[in-house]
Amino acid sequence: MRMYDIIRKKRDGGELTTQEIKFFIDGYVKGEIPDYQASALLMAIFFKGMNFRETADLTFAVRDSGQRLDFSAINGIRVDKHSTGGVGDKTSLVVAPLVASLGVKVAKMSGRGLGHTGGTIDKLESIPGFKTDLSEEEFLKNVNEIGVCIVGQNRDLAPADKKLYALRDVTATVDSLPLVVSSIMGKKLAADDDCIVLDVKTGSGAFAKSLEDSRTLAKVMVDIGKQAGKKMLALITDMDRPLGNAIGNTLEVKEAIDTLNGHGPEDFTEICIILATNMLYLAGKGSMEECEKAVKGAIADKSALETFKKMVKAQGGDASFIDNPDKFAKAPFERNVKAQKSGYIHHVDTEGYGISSLLLGAGRNTKEESIDFSAGIVLKKKTGDYVKEGEELAVMYTSDEKRFESAINKLYDSTVILSDEPKKRPLVLDRVE
Amino acid sequence: MRMYDIIRKKRDGGELTTQEIKFFIDGYVKGEIPDYQASALLMAIFFKGMNFRETADLTFAVRDSGQRLDFSAINGIRVDKHSTGGVGDKTSLVVAPLVASLGVKVAKMSGRGLGHTGGTIDKLESIPGFKTDLSEEEFLKNVNEIGVCIVGQNRDLAPADKKLYALRDVTATVDSLPLVVSSIMGKKLAADDDCIVLDVKTGSGAFAKSLEDSRTLAKVMVDIGKQAGKKMLALITDMDRPLGNAIGNTLEVKEAIDTLNGHGPEDFTEICIILATNMLYLAGKGSMEECEKAVKGAIADKSALETFKKMVKAQGGDASFIDNPDKFAKAPFERNVKAQKSGYIHHVDTEGYGISSLLLGAGRNTKEESIDFSAGIVLKKKTGDYVKEGEELAVMYTSDEKRFESAINKLYDSTVILSDEPKKRPLVLDRVE
Repeated sequence: MRMYDIIRKKRDGGELTTQEIKFFIDGYVKGEIPDYQASALLMAIFFKGMNFRETADLTFAVRDSGQRLDFSAINGIRVDKHSTGGVGDKTSLVVAPLVASLGVKVAKMSGRGLGHTGGTIDKLESIPGFKTDLSEEEFLKNVNEIGVCIVGQNRDLAPADKKLYALRDVTATVDSLPLVVSSIMGKKLAADDDCIVLDVKTGSGAFAKSLEDSRTLAKVMVDIGKQAGKKMLALITDMDRPLGNAIGNTLEVKEAIDTLNGHGPEDFTEICIILATNMLYLAGKGSMEECEKAVKGAIADKSALETFKKMVKAQGGDASFIDNPDKFAKAPFERNVKAQKSGYIHHVDTEGYGISSLLLGAGRNTKEESIDFSAGIVLKKKTGDYVKEGEELAVMYTSDEKRFESAINKLYDSTVILSDEPKKRPLVLDRVE
Repeated sequence: MRMYDIIRKKRDGGELTTQEIKFFIDGYVKGEIPDYQASALLMAIFFKGMNFRETADLTFAVRDSGQRLDFSAINGIRVDKHSTGGVGDKTSLVVAPLVASLGVKVAKMSGRGLGHTGGTIDKLESIPGFKTDLSEEEFLKNVNEIGVCIVGQNRDLAPADKKLYALRDVTATVDSLPLVVSSIMGKKLAADDDCIVLDVKTGSGAFAKSLEDSRTLAKVMVDIGKQAGKKMLALITDMDRPLGNAIGNTLEVKEAIDTLNGHGPEDFTEICIILATNMLYLAGKGSMEECEKAVKGAIADKSALETFKKMVKAQGGDASFIDNPDKFAKAPFERNVKAQKSGYIHHVDTEGYGISSLLLGAGRNTKEESIDFSAGIVLKKKTGDYVKEGEELAVMYTSDEKRFESAINKLYDSTVILSDEPKKRPLVLDRVE
């Protein structure tokens, strides 16, 4: 088998065999296939696509490219959720303890943030003492005892994806359905969950810009997961609005605590309830109505918050910060951002908001950079809101005053204010089972 | 400027600017742009193409990527011909001395063979003593005194093409019009000729498979050459038949000598006369009729042969081999290849014939391999001929008897014999000025 023939076959619109796809992934991970042949194939896939069978084979080859996790030591149904990108997405912080408090297990490995997207691990590490590098033993023990544990992704899971993603990122081959699917599902399937709820973002800033494309993407991922023996479900949610009001690590943790206390932002609370309800439902914990009732109950009676506190304690974090979020260090500099004109916020470029927060110090451009945990943005107006010229649009926080100017400009550029009222879009646009 | 944006722009069907194309070629030659980004762009160009302006800019960027030749020390009009590939194409051996004997200058740099295509330099080196690595001074002196000199391509001409071609060859991005054009014309325009006659091959084995595609290819190359200030002309010739009967170095030199003596194979003589006539015509040596008459005269009165002998002598070759071609060493092993069935030779895969000759030892698979000069094939039947089962199809020559079997099988596989008589195709299918 020769890589040249595989490239040529895909270039000419052919269907790659299971063996050809495995040959490519295995050879690429081993370094036997050079980057320049891999990138030529990726570009050919960008143009010619892959059918379902090829996409599934690519996903399984990525999954099998490294170690696979074994969660069999965990008692009970294991459920995970995954979002296909999103800014200010701190849903894991709320949803994981929420469903764990209701008897399903969440054994979660999360990533750090890079560029404009934040990472759950960074957010958790903004809680003083919180450790994300537990041993396998501790991890499994915590999941069994508390129901939930969230650690960093330090294992060699799906190394093909890491290598391929780095290449796609510099060769303009990120936006391809089979490549997106195999990247997300290859990693997810290398873990050992029973149920996976996908949160597929749709909108101008997402990979899938139309609802139709998002349905297709969701359906392919759901079907591949099922083929691998998982229970699968996908929600299609609106990318064109940040979730909640906070962007930035400490700010998002505080918002998550508010939400677990029952007084979080309305939209964020709603999406957390929907996600948790679907996770419970998929795990077989009753009808959708029953699950929704249980989820709302776990917020109302603070049992979800208790589980979150137990998780924080078990991972070395200082739980007094959860009881009293005012203890979190506040950024030394704070700036109000005022609307430059009156009108309705029609549309928001969430990626631009993420970059604005990054510019304030809340993220990292390279893996080596450190993060200013207290930096970030709290939105005062969101998509659909009416704002008057000079009225407060957002508050920005940073440890470096010089960072405000570019961050404010980026926020302005990312906010479209028009005179007519926009149509309301529901948070969840569709559900694919 | 970022390579990523250039790839993305072409991927999305955009038109690259002159600056973007120069940035790519310069950065790639300097090693600042990695192979994996170059191959992604090449594949995007494969799918999205380039318009004339982009193709011309790419050609000029390739031309300007290294040293350019200066032939101003040569007195008189300098004319060159270039063929877009072909097996058994020893036309340069005949045409160069032929037009030189009629007063135009041929200062030719040729390549060595690789894979199934032979190289003019290898063919000339099969003449004992013939040197192809002359100094610049000797080269120009020979052209001025004899009218013709053919040397190896040892200068750093169009290094971008060398690097790009090697990459295209392993990433399935060879067959793209703008990439083919910029490769051929980038190199040709780095030389310093006044007139260029292109021999554009058409047919199933060629890049341009239809006459229409070949016309398009020819027209783009002719127009780019004119834009660079050259006099240009292209002939579209049939790829689906080898030229002449001989394939292999010594065998082709002997056939060239036969042709200069006026008794070469009919088809090969005809194409040499047509090419030489067009070269003379382009150089302003009269009407097509006058040029054809002069060319035929130079064969008849042996003045072309005399020029060839002078060239051989001036480059250190033993001219007694030209007077007496039987002096050339004959291969120790010879094998008749007999037709397996009766019928008309409908079609021939010339690339397959080239590979068959390569298998006999007449070519090299890698740059480092040495060549068996005496190895090769002499065809006894060609496209359009009727052959009876058991009748001689070809004679093969080699220094290694074990090589016959695979070479014979390849020849059989490359020869389509059918019962009905094929339509005659002219050697030259069109002419683009």
